[in-house]
Amino acid sequence: MPLIDETARGVYIIAATPFTDAGALDLASADRLIESYLAAGVDGVTILGVFGEAPKLSNEESLTFAKRVLARIDGRVPVVVGVSAPGMDVMRDFTKTVMDLGAAGAMVAPLTGLKTDDQIYGYYAQVTAALGSTPIVLQDYPQTTQVTMAPSLINRLFHDFPSLKILKHEETPGLKKITLVRADEAAGNRRRVSILVGNGAMHLPLELHRGVDGANTGFAFAEMLVDVVRLFHAGEKERAEDLYDIYLPLVRYENQPGLGLAIRKEVLRRRGLIGSAKVRSPGPSLDKHDHAELDHLLARLDRAKRERGF
Amino acid sequence: MPLIDETARGVYIIAATPFTDAGALDLASADRLIESYLAAGVDGVTILGVFGEAPKLSNEESLTFAKRVLARIDGRVPVVVGVSAPGMDVMRDFTKTVMDLGAAGAMVAPLTGLKTDDQIYGYYAQVTAALGSTPIVLQDYPQTTQVTMAPSLINRLFHDFPSLKILKHEETPGLKKITLVRADEAAGNRRRVSILVGNGAMHLPLELHRGVDGANTGFAFAEMLVDVVRLFHAGEKERAEDLYDIYLPLVRYENQPGLGLAIRKEVLRRRGLIGSAKVRSPGPSLDKHDHAELDHLLARLDRAKRERGF
Amino acid sequence: MPLIDETARGVYIIAATPFTDAGALDLASADRLIESYLAAGVDGVTILGVFGEAPKLSNEESLTFAKRVLARIDGRVPVVVGVSAPGMDVMRDFTKTVMDLGAAGAMVAPLTGLKTDDQIYGYYAQVTAALGSTPIVLQDYPQTTQVTMAPSLINRLFHDFPSLKILKHEETPGLKKITLVRADEAAGNRRRVSILVGNGAMHLPLELHRGVDGANTGFAFAEMLVDVVRLFHAGEKERAEDLYDIYLPLVRYENQPGLGLAIRKEVLRRRGLIGSAKVRSPGPSLDKHDHAELDHLLARLDRAKRERGF
Amino acid sequence: MPLIDETARGVYIIAATPFTDAGALDLASADRLIESYLAAGVDGVTILGVFGEAPKLSNEESLTFAKRVLARIDGRVPVVVGVSAPGMDVMRDFTKTVMDLGAAGAMVAPLTGLKTDDQIYGYYAQVTAALGSTPIVLQDYPQTTQVTMAPSLINRLFHDFPSLKILKHEETPGLKKITLVRADEAAGNRRRVSILVGNGAMHLPLELHRGVDGANTGFAFAEMLVDVVRLFHAGEKERAEDLYDIYLPLVRYENQPGLGLAIRKEVLRRRGLIGSAKVRSPGPSLDKHDHAELDHLLARLDRAKRERGF
Repeated sequence: MPLIDETARGVYIIAATPFTDAGALDLASADRLIESYLAAGVDGVTILGVFGEAPKLSNEESLTFAKRVLARIDGRVPVVVGVSAPGMDVMRDFTKTVMDLGAAGAMVAPLTGLKTDDQIYGYYAQVTAALGSTPIVLQDYPQTTQVTMAPSLINRLFHDFPSLKILKHEETPGLKKITLVRADEAAGNRRRVSILVGNGAMHLPLELHRGVDGANTGFAFAEMLVDVVRLFHAGEKERAEDLYDIYLPLVRYENQPGLGLAIRKEVLRRRGLIGSAKVRSPGPSLDKHDHAELDHLLARLDRAKRERGF
Repeated sequence: MPLIDETARGVYIIAATPFTDAGALDLASADRLIESYLAAGVDGVTILGVFGEAPKLSNEESLTFAKRVLARIDGRVPVVVGVSAPGMDVMRDFTKTVMDLGAAGAMVAPLTGLKTDDQIYGYYAQVTAALGSTPIVLQDYPQTTQVTMAPSLINRLFHDFPSLKILKHEETPGLKKITLVRADEAAGNRRRVSILVGNGAMHLPLELHRGVDGANTGFAFAEMLVDVVRLFHAGEKERAEDLYDIYLPLVRYENQPGLGLAIRKEVLRRRGLIGSAKVRSPGPSLDKHDHAELDHLLARLDRAKRERGF
Repeated sequence: MPLIDETARGVYIIAATPFTDAGALDLASADRLIESYLAAGVDGVTILGVFGEAPKLSNEESLTFAKRVLARIDGRVPVVVGVSAPGMDVMRDFTKTVMDLGAAGAMVAPLTGLKTDDQIYGYYAQVTAALGSTPIVLQDYPQTTQVTMAPSLINRLFHDFPSLKILKHEETPGLKKITLVRADEAAGNRRRVSILVGNGAMHLPLELHRGVDGANTGFAFAEMLVDVVRLFHAGEKERAEDLYDIYLPLVRYENQPGLGLAIRKEVLRRRGLIGSAKVRSPGPSLDKHDHAELDHLLARLDRAKRERGF
Repeated sequence: MPLIDETARGVYIIAATPFTDAGALDLASADRLIESYLAAGVDGVTILGVFGEAPKLSNEESLTFAKRVLARIDGRVPVVVGVSAPGMDVMRDFTKTVMDLGAAGAMVAPLTGLKTDDQIYGYYAQVTAALGSTPIVLQDYPQTTQVTMAPSLINRLFHDFPSLKILKHEETPGLKKITLVRADEAAGNRRRVSILVGNGAMHLPLELHRGVDGANTGFAFAEMLVDVVRLFHAGEKERAEDLYDIYLPLVRYENQPGLGLAIRKEVLRRRGLIGSAKVRSPGPSLDKHDHAELDHLLARLDRAKRERGF
């Protein structure tokens, strides 16, 4: 199985982890969901991220889920596995296990509580040493980790640690950060790396204009992400943004911190891609008002697609 | 001058504070901006909020600005003045001064650092005692204050403190909070209060569906906020949302924390409503990439308005 | 094995988790350390807390460690197991396992990210439902969890959830909180619960005066904690505080956030109670300046004990 | 009046701002308090810091207070004025005013909300540009500002900005930071600067061993700080620490975040140095339990001084 590298491009979907209504891993739904992602044309799949509820799984469940997804995908696209953990030993062992099973790389967010550039740098020095040759997605996600990585620090990390291959960019606001990371490359200071954006795709077209290579997020209509990125890369930039704007009301709705995962899973359930919208406890669930709102937004989405010729 | 009360409805625009390029108060621009708000049909004006850069003004400048705006508006619509301050004595004295000058009410956010329901409750007990009969807008703004007010606490505050009249709702996600505040009223537990929403209007149509009375935010096209709320209140709900969705790409762009104020001021400047987009130091400014992005989004806005018949 | 209940009293030592220099669990050291705690006269032992580096252990290692300690203690004193986890399913399963192995109770801290009284209350409603009849130590530790629990909320939790038995009090400042929790009991609002204090014992004598039942912390000289609490309970309050004050310079030194665990483990190593001062990565370690400082403070401790007749 | 520079040494006391019971500035008490500080032998006085309740004063009150203190001291020791403000314009104007009145320097903390090394660096670039030739105390106070400055950043700031003269060190734990700042000087990378420590003197003797020049904090017995630093600098290091340890139980008690200022003011009031222990609203006050605790600790302090020959 080829590993991820700096040329990663397109949409690496952040996969949800399906549960039954009772909260058990639902591996049949996982198969169905993964097939839908592949059918939508994603270029890669990332599992066990924050939106994959990784921290709520036992080590054993994480492994079970990773095995199933890796077997299902069977090399059709690269699979990145979120391996963030409070302890380096656990992270290292889990990474080795999933890489041996055929994962294409590991995603690592900075540990909550890191405060200064030096602390963050020191952390990734430890991580890259511990994970050896495993290619790594550097996850920049201050909303959850409360760790903000300056563009200059990101440039330094990519300069010094060759196993860092992809920036999963999730700071908000973060458009300037993209420009500064690309500028460092244009100045010849280091190799060009892949930048894929998260944040529920809230600024995707603008981010593509700023020079990112694609998206690494989990909107419930993976095909929209795929089509927007492809149209953009094919030079049809306005049409890409026209398509995106049709979905923006829902993108914005799904992007609500805390609640968003429940919304996303419910949309996936309504589309028949998973069996239950269950988010593991403690976690959000939708009430009748949320359901009515979602009905409303999905109906408007359908109408807008029709009216605007998509 | 009539005071604000629980019947407040429509759009209370959050006014920017214009500066010259050198950073001095630009009172001529303030006049022009205020007139544009009134021409757009706003129902009220809020000055010296966070987006009015109040913390960066000296006490004397705040007073000068408040005087000028109050004189300019001269009773045409109510003016709410942000009076939040780290010390109660300063808050009380400033409130008395602006109320004597004709303000219609004061807006007070919880002090950064308050942690529990009891601490927040105790703070508003002090505030309402200190401000006496002044009607108050309760500003719920966790993104900036880092203080989250539970719906049950908000209900308790409105129950116990009659001088609290309006909830400026700014939590995100916060749709359920609206429902819970309205439910407390429907259950007959306390009087109905006004809810006006902030957050740069990121969820305005949904919030109107949830039962809010209008908006208390500062998007650079005040007329959009006014039209959306009026259409909605007139029963043309889908048309209101169609109009809103045209602006959503810009709403989302302007809603970037930290950078948003500079974007808003630049749009106001381009529209000829203020003389300079200057944000006081320390504060953001736009670079050439931001300007190009804004060109792009404003051009798309114009096209979408034409294409969709607005 | 008897379970913990509201009568818990004395010193429940927070046990370190010993590792080899290479970072592996050191179960032989665990045995030695546990025996030293028992020899010091502790009334209970708490394992797998924050200072036990629980988040850095795999689920399997946690279980291995818990089994070993439970077997070693073999009912001589009650063993409380820290079971805090981001997911309720993992917490419930692990709790069941250790209770079946003979644990006397479970300790649960509020999840990082909980914000309002209602959210915290809701969390413990879920926890107590999930853990069923297991007696629980409510861990109040805002320094790490960033969740502050108001005294009124703590009173409400103990009122409503009978399986909460002990408050591990760790807010700072927190002396008034003790008084308010005891006042609620004196007013007859609910049963009296046990309060044991943490915070590295930084205020232990004052907390005993305020009405706590003992300590639930992990200072490197467990015998000091035991003697202070016993002297105090025996009515020799000034002598208890005289003894405590001799250790206060070291208590304060060990109480440094982040670094404290490395200091504590090094003192335990110097005393021959564990084989290595290793803190799992990412974690602090002592440099030559820290070692010299510790030499200095331990020498001063010895001198003070001699000079003041202890 | 001579200005502060890199040779600052000894105790720069953080002065309380006395109020009447009604909350008005109490300038007569300010005179008395200042004289007591001078009588205790302080080497400098810092006014309008966080513990001086500066944020709760109006701009006018701050100026009134600064004028009074500057007039009272009249050049006998240097006076540093806290000028931190959310806006650069207000900071610059106030600094100019107090420097013209005879202040010896300005103290500036990083703005709450700064996140990365670059952001903090950029902030001090703006501050030093705005304040021109005014010598500056760099206040490192993460507990309040939530901004952590890495040792390497501090070294860079002192290297690049010659108007930064003194580090008011307040991180905790922070002993290693002192060593790293001194090491940068020993390596010849930049001039030696003054380091004065805050944190209520919780680690003063250890910090002196690490190479600091004195204290810049506000313990209620200024003479203890003065004597400890003088004894230490005179080579009587063990005796300095013996003296310090007598006060440590009170130091620790006064060092409670939030409550500490009320305790300090009450001790100052009991000693006859200020007329009222009033802390401006919103702020803490002591209840009967706190008063009893203080009685107890002060009685023990007296006894310990007698018994240990101080």
